[in-house]
Amino acid sequence: MFKENSNLAIAQISSYPGEISDNVKKIINSIIKAKSIGAKLIIFPELAIPGYMSLDLMLYPKYIEENLKALDKIKLLTKDVMAIIGFIDQDRNKIGPDGTAIRYNSAAIIYDQKIVAIQDKTLLPNYDVFFEKRYFAEGRDRKIINFQDLKLGIEICEDLWDENYSVKVSQDLIKKGADILINISSSPFYLGKRNDRENLIKRISLKFKVPFVYVNCVGVQDGYDGELVFDGQSMVFNNKGELIRLGKEFEDDIFYINPADLWNGKRLTPPRYNQIHDLYKALVLAITSYFRRTKFRKAYIGLSGGIDSAVVASLAVKALGSKNVTGILMPSQFTDKESINDAKKLAKNLTIEYKIIFINGLFKNFQKSLKNSFKEKGVDTTEENLQARIRGMILMAHANKFKGLVISTANKTETALGYTTLYGDMCGAIAPLADVSKLLVYELANFINQEQEIGIIPQNIIKRIPTAELRVNQTDEQSLGAPYSIISPLVDEIIEGGKGSKELEKKYSKKVVEHITNLINQNEYKRRQAAPAVKVTKKAFGIGRRIPIVHQFKI
Amino acid sequence: MFKENSNLAIAQISSYPGEISDNVKKIINSIIKAKSIGAKLIIFPELAIPGYMSLDLMLYPKYIEENLKALDKIKLLTKDVMAIIGFIDQDRNKIGPDGTAIRYNSAAIIYDQKIVAIQDKTLLPNYDVFFEKRYFAEGRDRKIINFQDLKLGIEICEDLWDENYSVKVSQDLIKKGADILINISSSPFYLGKRNDRENLIKRISLKFKVPFVYVNCVGVQDGYDGELVFDGQSMVFNNKGELIRLGKEFEDDIFYINPADLWNGKRLTPPRYNQIHDLYKALVLAITSYFRRTKFRKAYIGLSGGIDSAVVASLAVKALGSKNVTGILMPSQFTDKESINDAKKLAKNLTIEYKIIFINGLFKNFQKSLKNSFKEKGVDTTEENLQARIRGMILMAHANKFKGLVISTANKTETALGYTTLYGDMCGAIAPLADVSKLLVYELANFINQEQEIGIIPQNIIKRIPTAELRVNQTDEQSLGAPYSIISPLVDEIIEGGKGSKELEKKYSKKVVEHITNLINQNEYKRRQAAPAVKVTKKAFGIGRRIPIVHQFKI
Repeated sequence: MFKENSNLAIAQISSYPGEISDNVKKIINSIIKAKSIGAKLIIFPELAIPGYMSLDLMLYPKYIEENLKALDKIKLLTKDVMAIIGFIDQDRNKIGPDGTAIRYNSAAIIYDQKIVAIQDKTLLPNYDVFFEKRYFAEGRDRKIINFQDLKLGIEICEDLWDENYSVKVSQDLIKKGADILINISSSPFYLGKRNDRENLIKRISLKFKVPFVYVNCVGVQDGYDGELVFDGQSMVFNNKGELIRLGKEFEDDIFYINPADLWNGKRLTPPRYNQIHDLYKALVLAITSYFRRTKFRKAYIGLSGGIDSAVVASLAVKALGSKNVTGILMPSQFTDKESINDAKKLAKNLTIEYKIIFINGLFKNFQKSLKNSFKEKGVDTTEENLQARIRGMILMAHANKFKGLVISTANKTETALGYTTLYGDMCGAIAPLADVSKLLVYELANFINQEQEIGIIPQNIIKRIPTAELRVNQTDEQSLGAPYSIISPLVDEIIEGGKGSKELEKKYSKKVVEHITNLINQNEYKRRQAAPAVKVTKKAFGIGRRIPIVHQFKI
Repeated sequence: MFKENSNLAIAQISSYPGEISDNVKKIINSIIKAKSIGAKLIIFPELAIPGYMSLDLMLYPKYIEENLKALDKIKLLTKDVMAIIGFIDQDRNKIGPDGTAIRYNSAAIIYDQKIVAIQDKTLLPNYDVFFEKRYFAEGRDRKIINFQDLKLGIEICEDLWDENYSVKVSQDLIKKGADILINISSSPFYLGKRNDRENLIKRISLKFKVPFVYVNCVGVQDGYDGELVFDGQSMVFNNKGELIRLGKEFEDDIFYINPADLWNGKRLTPPRYNQIHDLYKALVLAITSYFRRTKFRKAYIGLSGGIDSAVVASLAVKALGSKNVTGILMPSQFTDKESINDAKKLAKNLTIEYKIIFINGLFKNFQKSLKNSFKEKGVDTTEENLQARIRGMILMAHANKFKGLVISTANKTETALGYTTLYGDMCGAIAPLADVSKLLVYELANFINQEQEIGIIPQNIIKRIPTAELRVNQTDEQSLGAPYSIISPLVDEIIEGGKGSKELEKKYSKKVVEHITNLINQNEYKRRQAAPAVKVTKKAFGIGRRIPIVHQFKI
């Protein structure tokens, strides 16, 4: 058992790739703080020293060395306490196929200024957005760590999830004598993930009748072609499979457990799981984080009077403050007065600066410049794209001139269908909604209005029939061939559900299924040049979904 | 030994991902042709049935089934002949972490309408542009195939390269009794790769005193964030380590070997290895292939009068024919008459259509539209970007209107430094020079002029001081802080050489090294939204080089 008064500290911190010295400061401060409160065991997340998504920086030997030196520095602070910290270990005697020393995704177990053990991750995720086999070798062995009178079984992230949730790693640690299971993670968020984690850990704790300590990181990291959100929500379970503590959501947190509670702690009733609440928090954090890390403060957003830009502007205001957000209205001859009024009203509600720049003159000027070239050719999508691109240029010019960033307003449904203009409305440094389906955008709008800022998004924006206003009387339904109430869930079933035509045709018309799958396939080329999406579902566009630009395969 | 008159056929074909039925047609036609010539053993490349870079299409069980059905169809043609063909095998009894049946990258060995053996790839490359561990499990075992009186040892691509070229797989096959080694590959091209392959195979053949048959595929495939070129150049070595046959370069080919030659064949003197010749061929094939597969014919290229656009236009004319290429000159107030004249002269030499669209009016119109917003702010890069983006829009408008594609003219050096405008000169469906350094662009220009079309690129374009002409008297050297003679090789040493500051500072000034590495790091965000590059070096931007958008790490 833990000795009396020797607290267990869960240091749910945000570490950022390539920012080793900042990460170390955070780790050191956490240790100092925890020690001052009497903690004897302090647990940090997976790869807390280098940051989880260090990507190919890990192929530089110097990067690995810096992370090892950081560990040496941290070591000095562990007089009379044990710290468990994620870092990159290496074996200088083994050279991998990329010509560098073999690396491990490891936990250093430090006590009294010495590394008493190193536990490597044994299962390396290499699917969806994960590509750990690019960087790491599988763990060398699995051991039990003695701490006071206890035997700790330490595993790293995927070791918990295992192939098909067979909990082999946990089982092995129990067999080896573990009294407590500890999992250090950098587990990316998707809608519903907390529930998935909770159910799985509960099952393991119940099965083996042991306490389970799960330490997750926080923050938003570049997953190479897509932003990954880490939501924290570290969890502690007693030996009866009951959740007794839950870390903050989407925030750094350090909390302490009275060790006796690992056996006797009372069950906590966690806040009811609310998908839209989590989605909102994840997206706000993604924007805050992207701007903070790139050292930009000012955001420029095209306000069309539509729902996507209204939601993005609301998220940006929450993330950056209203004084850092500028809305730009860029009406054309096809823009309804209603749209302008709604956009203005939104900007006023959000107390953001807004500008109106009419694009008719520019559009006509382009048409004039292209007249000789285009000759007798009629009007088609070229002209629609021209309008969207003029708007993209105006937004980018503002971002360039005032040292800001454009936030793209593209949602997942339109990104799927290519109902967007490359270099036009796809412009931006980050696309917060690119993994959020159109119907979820509506839910977000209602959530913002009801639970965040009462009525901040004008009802008319939510209620109007969606239109891109790129030609007279255009509606999205007309352009896409079906209403969003059909298309939005259909796209989700194709992308997230991975369903094939046969299954889909039981529920949707063959014609619609064919049309939508064709659009998804034909527009892969646009997505390759899209602004980075923020992953919030089980399957986002980007690195986690690698489909050839051209292919003839029918799902 | 082979029986007399039983020819060995090497079917160096191009297979395309997601085009299984077309691939099968090609395979069937090759078998019919080879049989008619008396071949008894026909060898196809790695993953010839589905196409090598099938990417996440492989996660659809239906895709795997289609590839298996295709194999069944091909089987019927093997009466009295043996065929060795790359395909995707699966084990329905084992489910992987992505929820689908475990897959193998395998060779089917078919004889007399039966699959007599399946040999899986045992080493799966997972570095640089490769991510086979996302899709495949490591091979089940290694076996020897009896054919006539011979014992064939069959390996797949990486099995040859091995970790650190230790040739373990070949050794194992020899130990098991192989008389001949056969390697089926889909081996992507980089400058110098043929030499690397030749040296390695020669070494193995010499070491074990066996003939070695190496069958590579041809064509250009989307590697997810970068185009991969497969150059063919299949090779046959006799048992003395002498190259006796070499397949065509960058072209489909089927050729036959008199089996006796595997032991007695005379050494062939291969064409002298010429880097620029190969580069030229690779880039032309990349353009041809991208257009053919996306079913576009017309290319639009912005002609600045500079060397990059001159080389891209020359490549496009070779790839698509002069009637399918349109050059667009878009002079501004900063454009020298010399540039216009040179661009016109180039277009005339290439016999392509060209158009001149002055952008001054558009530029001024944008400035006017932005005046209220920008107020007293002075002119800066915003205005340079505006010009580049107006040009991008004009090119895209032409591509949209005439159903064509824009080819980006960005080279590797400027892509590295971010000396490009996102949504401006970075627009395009494909960027043929994005892995070609500035100095290599000059070499390409000279090669085109000397060995392809005599003097087609006006000398003045090659000789002029490089300038983006985005403000008065601008030169690239002035904007970048050093001439290309320094910057271009420095960038190559950083990106391809993977060299750190310490090493670089022995050769370059500390100031230049710092400036250039900073530029490379700061501009990762632009590269994420760049048009797909064509990989021609050992390290291209894109999927093979995954660096976080923001980080503080100094190489």
